[in-house]
Amino acid sequence: MPDQPTPTGPFDPSFLAATELIGKRWTAAIVWAIYHGHNRFGDLQHNIPGLSARMLSERLKELEAEDILERNVYAETPVRIEYQLTEKGLALRTVLVALGKWAIKWDHRIESGK
Amino acid sequence: MPDQPTPTGPFDPSFLAATELIGKRWTAAIVWAIYHGHNRFGDLQHNIPGLSARMLSERLKELEAEDILERNVYAETPVRIEYQLTEKGLALRTVLVALGKWAIKWDHRIESGK
Repeated sequence: MPDQPTPTGPFDPSFLAATELIGKRWTAAIVWAIYHGHNRFGDLQHNIPGLSARMLSERLKELEAEDILERNVYAETPVRIEYQLTEKGLALRTVLVALGKWAIKWDHRIESGK
Repeated sequence: MPDQPTPTGPFDPSFLAATELIGKRWTAAIVWAIYHGHNRFGDLQHNIPGLSARMLSERLKELEAEDILERNVYAETPVRIEYQLTEKGLALRTVLVALGKWAIKWDHRIESGK
């Protein structure tokens, strides 16, 4: 029997929650962009085509609540705010790399959007 | 600079589509259950707590349209119908294993659902 990723398999609440977290529109792109050094709000918005400021702001708050990133405020003039991945957020890298490889290998598009 | 999973990074349409595919409620659980040998409708429904017949039916059709699984009809009495992962579907295993490991390591729950 193949390995299971969790003791109770895909039906574990944490597994289901993780798939939904990653699947939420823009979330993976934002995590990946921060991972690649786009740490500021404007920089993120600039680098993720199609992502509105409102949606970016919402997702950043969600990811902060999930302890995937942290928001650091530096008392400079003007104030500098940077988003950094936590250890938990950095650990998503393996998942995103695997998913990216799969997507490019299979040139995956959602059928209805082709 | 770290590896990127696709030439254009997280903003590649196939990457975004893949994250949304995996994140759609129940999709990962269904793929994983089929991978573990639950190949028939009733068996899938029985093994994924909380998944309704209507939702299971909808997801199976979507996954068939995405070429992630195929539906095989065997002309027996009564007719036997089995779902099998395609090569593309089987290739998702790496992603699901990585995600499952992450979920269990961080005991991930969506915050609002804790």
